[in-house]
Amino acid sequence: MANFGVIGSNGAMGEALKRVIEASGHTYAGGIDKGGDAAGLADASDALIDFSAPAALKTNLHAAIGAGVPIVVGTTGLEPGHHQAIDEAARAIPVLQTGNTSLGVTLLAHLVNEAAQRLGDDWDIEIVEMHHRRKVDAPSGTALLLGEAAAKGRGVELSQASESGRDGHTGARKQGAIGFAALRGGTVTGEHSVILAGDEERITLSHSAENRDIFARGAVKAAEWLQDREAGRYTMEEVLGL
Amino acid sequence: MANFGVIGSNGAMGEALKRVIEASGHTYAGGIDKGGDAAGLADASDALIDFSAPAALKTNLHAAIGAGVPIVVGTTGLEPGHHQAIDEAARAIPVLQTGNTSLGVTLLAHLVNEAAQRLGDDWDIEIVEMHHRRKVDAPSGTALLLGEAAAKGRGVELSQASESGRDGHTGARKQGAIGFAALRGGTVTGEHSVILAGDEERITLSHSAENRDIFARGAVKAAEWLQDREAGRYTMEEVLGL
Amino acid sequence: MANFGVIGSNGAMGEALKRVIEASGHTYAGGIDKGGDAAGLADASDALIDFSAPAALKTNLHAAIGAGVPIVVGTTGLEPGHHQAIDEAARAIPVLQTGNTSLGVTLLAHLVNEAAQRLGDDWDIEIVEMHHRRKVDAPSGTALLLGEAAAKGRGVELSQASESGRDGHTGARKQGAIGFAALRGGTVTGEHSVILAGDEERITLSHSAENRDIFARGAVKAAEWLQDREAGRYTMEEVLGL
Amino acid sequence: MANFGVIGSNGAMGEALKRVIEASGHTYAGGIDKGGDAAGLADASDALIDFSAPAALKTNLHAAIGAGVPIVVGTTGLEPGHHQAIDEAARAIPVLQTGNTSLGVTLLAHLVNEAAQRLGDDWDIEIVEMHHRRKVDAPSGTALLLGEAAAKGRGVELSQASESGRDGHTGARKQGAIGFAALRGGTVTGEHSVILAGDEERITLSHSAENRDIFARGAVKAAEWLQDREAGRYTMEEVLGL
Repeated sequence: MANFGVIGSNGAMGEALKRVIEASGHTYAGGIDKGGDAAGLADASDALIDFSAPAALKTNLHAAIGAGVPIVVGTTGLEPGHHQAIDEAARAIPVLQTGNTSLGVTLLAHLVNEAAQRLGDDWDIEIVEMHHRRKVDAPSGTALLLGEAAAKGRGVELSQASESGRDGHTGARKQGAIGFAALRGGTVTGEHSVILAGDEERITLSHSAENRDIFARGAVKAAEWLQDREAGRYTMEEVLGL
Repeated sequence: MANFGVIGSNGAMGEALKRVIEASGHTYAGGIDKGGDAAGLADASDALIDFSAPAALKTNLHAAIGAGVPIVVGTTGLEPGHHQAIDEAARAIPVLQTGNTSLGVTLLAHLVNEAAQRLGDDWDIEIVEMHHRRKVDAPSGTALLLGEAAAKGRGVELSQASESGRDGHTGARKQGAIGFAALRGGTVTGEHSVILAGDEERITLSHSAENRDIFARGAVKAAEWLQDREAGRYTMEEVLGL
Repeated sequence: MANFGVIGSNGAMGEALKRVIEASGHTYAGGIDKGGDAAGLADASDALIDFSAPAALKTNLHAAIGAGVPIVVGTTGLEPGHHQAIDEAARAIPVLQTGNTSLGVTLLAHLVNEAAQRLGDDWDIEIVEMHHRRKVDAPSGTALLLGEAAAKGRGVELSQASESGRDGHTGARKQGAIGFAALRGGTVTGEHSVILAGDEERITLSHSAENRDIFARGAVKAAEWLQDREAGRYTMEEVLGL
Repeated sequence: MANFGVIGSNGAMGEALKRVIEASGHTYAGGIDKGGDAAGLADASDALIDFSAPAALKTNLHAAIGAGVPIVVGTTGLEPGHHQAIDEAARAIPVLQTGNTSLGVTLLAHLVNEAAQRLGDDWDIEIVEMHHRRKVDAPSGTALLLGEAAAKGRGVELSQASESGRDGHTGARKQGAIGFAALRGGTVTGEHSVILAGDEERITLSHSAENRDIFARGAVKAAEWLQDREAGRYTMEEVLGL
């Protein structure tokens, strides 16, 4: 039993978090959105769950450090500077940042890593995702997470291999590239496919989310797991024992 | 029985055309590639089938006009200037230009047109395609053909609605947009999906080509059909009686 | 504004119907389940919406006839005897029976009919569906509805062409067969694909439902539309003006 | 460099094997089909590759034992009695039997095993495959191979868990079942999907073969690898070092 505070409480994800926190037997310590009092919320919580916006991340991390509580960061669209801020916060408190909190995606990333490791780079890797029409960034945080898993499996840097937003006269595909494509439409919660295309055969590894509760359940599970940890930066794989 | 000459004869599509022309009981009048003598080939042929490059299109059209023979244009990556050249050529000879010569894609475009017409623009349209790693342009000619069918069904101009190469902070999807995404990898002949994503439901209309013979068969069928036509610009739908 | 009564009110579909009826500005006249008083509910309603079980259908039709109110039948797993009972009831009251009340599926059936009509029977038709683990019948009512659309497009009887439950030494596929396959698992609301497989190319026409609200919205729309009709048997296509 | 003899040489797979054997720098020792002289072929070969029919298996194994040469068995539709015969033959010669000789499928089976192991049996497993219209058995050998991988990952016997050919009133899905569905049509070389369906999320692991050359290449690779082995029963995973 713990008190969990939610940052980014107004949207659909915020509602799912509140519902799941209460259904899990925990207490909802409250929620804030843009401009809310993160420090106050942190003081009232045993852990924070942040699904807000990159611009608010530093404030949220400081609030967690100030109150000495762990924080789960599920915000997407993070830049290198945000990751640096997370690394710094992780010296003081337990922080778990992930592009996707679901069990299925966490396992999928594992399988992608293994497939990329086993197959040579004559197997081309493409990652395609679809999300609802209101999503404002592309590729999705989960697509990037899967791309990282593929790059790691191959022993390359994603930033070196990544190819996104193909349009016009692109020339032939570069060997070793990891391609991304983003579809937007309707009310799709989130679908991701990693395609490994070799000579005359293809492997496709996919995940489909029916609604946001799976992310909320994973985030709450992560917040529970962080309760007993020392300061440090953790991953969903560790939470799930993969 | 007719003599068909092939422009763009060196690649895999050129080989498929030669094989299918001969298997159909016609004569292969010869093939040329980059730098070849289009006028000479046209003189030796009853019709030309052109699957080469946009840069060669005007030369090829002039060769067909010079010899007074019909021409099937399956080259992709055409710009507005190319379409204008085709319209001009069509005053002198029968010309059929298409982004895809297969029966399946031609029917699919029909269905896409109808679906787009019936569903309001609160159904978002996305077109995703996958082709082999050597393809140099994106989106594919077939994806654009399907986009045109969707735009026509909705009564809009594709050039106004088209959204391609999403990457980075894109903002929310624009209502009425027709989105494109291109995947590249392996030896995939060609796969296209048109997704119509509404509130909490989705329709997907797809085509998958196992090899290039279906395009070659359709192109030869088009060349046969053009034999008896007057000057003008024709479509695959007319050839197939759809 | 009307009073709509729901038969089969206990399950997830019953809850969706209640929610949608109230959200649409109508009144929920009440709901019954197995063993409930259908006649009493019919008397209190302007129309009945029945998503219960085949065994209850005759009782429900009689209740509607007794009260002189229209009825929407969304129950699946109907046998020929049930269809006969519906035809008889339709002499007295407006009845709309359908395997699927969503706009998307209704349009998809239209497209399937057209594709089957245009393509010869050298294009093999297969229908595959996936539903949640609690579904007790196979193929789904929607799969059968799509099969009917395909059979009608081809000018054959589905009962003659249908091939379901392939297992073991089946022999080669019969020309003209319409095949069905059923997947069950998880909490999938409903996914259907109609595959038309020709020589070296394939067209796939699919529908995916994210949740049951789309069926509830369509059923309520049908109940509204039936309010102004004379006795007779109607279809979703008529409701949607397709 | 070795002499490889092919059993089942008349069909499309036989042709692919001949082509690939010669393209790999080996010699085609000859091919036989129904009623051919297996013993004579075995004497003329350094290894046999058998893609014929279950009924011929024992004769083929005896021929290989008589000549003291390894044999790759790619025949599908095997019954327990056939597996027993393979086990017996493997005391005398190296034998590799597999439902699928491609690199991609062999890796996929690995991933399926791992996913099944990591996810509890509240994740339902379904396997769906599509093959050309001439295939006579269902589910495919590859589907069964993937089912075995899933069952092994879960620590159950496939024969206990397998559920195939759903049709009619099936009742709710049994917990722990591994379901199979078979689609047939067109000229599809082979497509397989393993779906793991949990609460509100799904993982799908798929393989698609563009043509038979991938199977022929894998079979030839297996025959090469068997050259240096002692008597015993081997797997594709061992050949590929997975």
